[in-house]
Amino acid sequence: MKKFLNDPKQFVPEFLEGIQLASDGALKYEPKYNLIYRADMPSDSKVSIIQGSGSGHEPAHTMIVGKGMLDAACPGDVFAGPPVDFVVETSKLMNSKMGILHIVNNYTGDRAAFEMGRELCEAEGLRIETLLVNDDVAVKDSTWTVGRRGVAGNFFVIKAVGAASEKGADLDELMRIGNKVVANVRTMGIALSSCTPPTRGTPLFEIAEDEMEVGIGIHGEPGRQRTKLVPATEIVDLLLNAIVPDLPFKDGDEVALMVNGLGGTTIAELYLLYGIAHKKLAAKGIKVFRSYVGEYCTSLEMAGAHISILKVDDEIKDLLLAPADVSIRIF
Amino acid sequence: MKKFLNDPKQFVPEFLEGIQLASDGALKYEPKYNLIYRADMPSDSKVSIIQGSGSGHEPAHTMIVGKGMLDAACPGDVFAGPPVDFVVETSKLMNSKMGILHIVNNYTGDRAAFEMGRELCEAEGLRIETLLVNDDVAVKDSTWTVGRRGVAGNFFVIKAVGAASEKGADLDELMRIGNKVVANVRTMGIALSSCTPPTRGTPLFEIAEDEMEVGIGIHGEPGRQRTKLVPATEIVDLLLNAIVPDLPFKDGDEVALMVNGLGGTTIAELYLLYGIAHKKLAAKGIKVFRSYVGEYCTSLEMAGAHISILKVDDEIKDLLLAPADVSIRIF
Repeated sequence: MKKFLNDPKQFVPEFLEGIQLASDGALKYEPKYNLIYRADMPSDSKVSIIQGSGSGHEPAHTMIVGKGMLDAACPGDVFAGPPVDFVVETSKLMNSKMGILHIVNNYTGDRAAFEMGRELCEAEGLRIETLLVNDDVAVKDSTWTVGRRGVAGNFFVIKAVGAASEKGADLDELMRIGNKVVANVRTMGIALSSCTPPTRGTPLFEIAEDEMEVGIGIHGEPGRQRTKLVPATEIVDLLLNAIVPDLPFKDGDEVALMVNGLGGTTIAELYLLYGIAHKKLAAKGIKVFRSYVGEYCTSLEMAGAHISILKVDDEIKDLLLAPADVSIRIF
Repeated sequence: MKKFLNDPKQFVPEFLEGIQLASDGALKYEPKYNLIYRADMPSDSKVSIIQGSGSGHEPAHTMIVGKGMLDAACPGDVFAGPPVDFVVETSKLMNSKMGILHIVNNYTGDRAAFEMGRELCEAEGLRIETLLVNDDVAVKDSTWTVGRRGVAGNFFVIKAVGAASEKGADLDELMRIGNKVVANVRTMGIALSSCTPPTRGTPLFEIAEDEMEVGIGIHGEPGRQRTKLVPATEIVDLLLNAIVPDLPFKDGDEVALMVNGLGGTTIAELYLLYGIAHKKLAAKGIKVFRSYVGEYCTSLEMAGAHISILKVDDEIKDLLLAPADVSIRIF
């Protein structure tokens, strides 16, 4: 394992401290719960938006805490959902008169922690709603999931509800908007390599030099098939042929098109994939309203990519274009 | 070689087309010269800012073309400077009454192309000045360079002159500002892995599973030494002990602190390094004015990182904080 590390067990706390130090005071860090939260939250004039999930998917979710996105994130260790007490203590700390929104990617561990956490909080009088994200069309059930997995489309859910929340939307309205995004976003990915969680020290799975995993999960879960590596244009076909008919996306639709890197793939390759996908969608009469190319939800240093497509209407467009300010930024 | 590719020879044109398609009309692409340029440029009310360099360092430089940054980039193939005619034709196309600024990282190939290109353009009456970037403290001369190499600090040079140019600065003023940034920025990097240029198909160099290259160049050029991998805290010490005394950065200084990923390193590891560096600088009385964590100048999928430090004054701070809008973005 070659990584920038001290003690592998301190990997998560050390990078979380880095996020806090890099935030110029915008974020606070509570080591007891792996908790990164907005320094200006909670506020009784805004619903508190919280996500947990495992670490190892950065920038999701601790690096997209900030104005117009998440108000707090309390991840578990790498590829492990947060313990129940992280959920409970984070929810209590972030409690608002307008209530709390939990955004949960559909994995068994995450769901269990957030369901139990919610029950414990509700017993103490907190008001919580839960938005479940399950955008991955690759497989119905999988190693860690009953039903579809939540993957890169989660970014769009957070962006939309984060923007609406800044405009004062209440909890019911955020649930309506979030579920609308979930209903309209579809994703699938391909991996070219494995990845190595720090405390494990060895690759999650083996994959031959001439193979790819089609429909990979973000914790290395198997996808639809293991096949020989094919050219980029065929890879885009494989992904679009799974994603487009699923909603279905149709002639005349406007969409947000994301090519998400899984961690080890160059941004140049992501733009190469983007160009192919953009043209193939255009040929089907599907117009890209806005492009998203880069790393949004990774699997450590895995080489690979997701294509994620969100059908947009005027309401979703406005929410995607609303300003936001998080830890990761170019400038 | 496992990459998202069609024909390796078409890697650069295909990702450049992707950049253009993802830009929502903000950028144009001229395949004859690998040229990405702002659709609203040239303008006679603004100096045209151009960079060439090789491909393979994305997002530098084609993905940071846009308002407040570069006006055009005309890279060569992966790790190859642009041919002279790319420089000449790009300069002619982007010609402005206010003149042209070439920003050149200090590599022999890049310098030769830009020097000859400038001469040819000047013979046709164009006014050009050249800003040379050489922020890498690792080695004095190296495989591809006489003098120090230009690396991640180049981002700060572009950000500063790009912002000043939007405010109407003339060519002399841009040279003054650019040279001031160059005089105040220092960088050094460490590689944990090699990388594979698409048309080569094999790794640039070999490195053992327990080794790191200290002071690596962005084309895999040797650095100061090949040593055993050490913990992250010691790596930060190695880099800061080379960078800080070089300017020197001193107690009371304010700085911009960048941790730049070389391509294959997770953003979580970059934040881990950032946190360590931030605290070590604070202990020396050096205050971070603004943080930059992510991929700014890569070596394809190489695992590794640069630390880059820029001493700032009020003028540089204003320029760093000025708005900019380029192809790569989070939202």
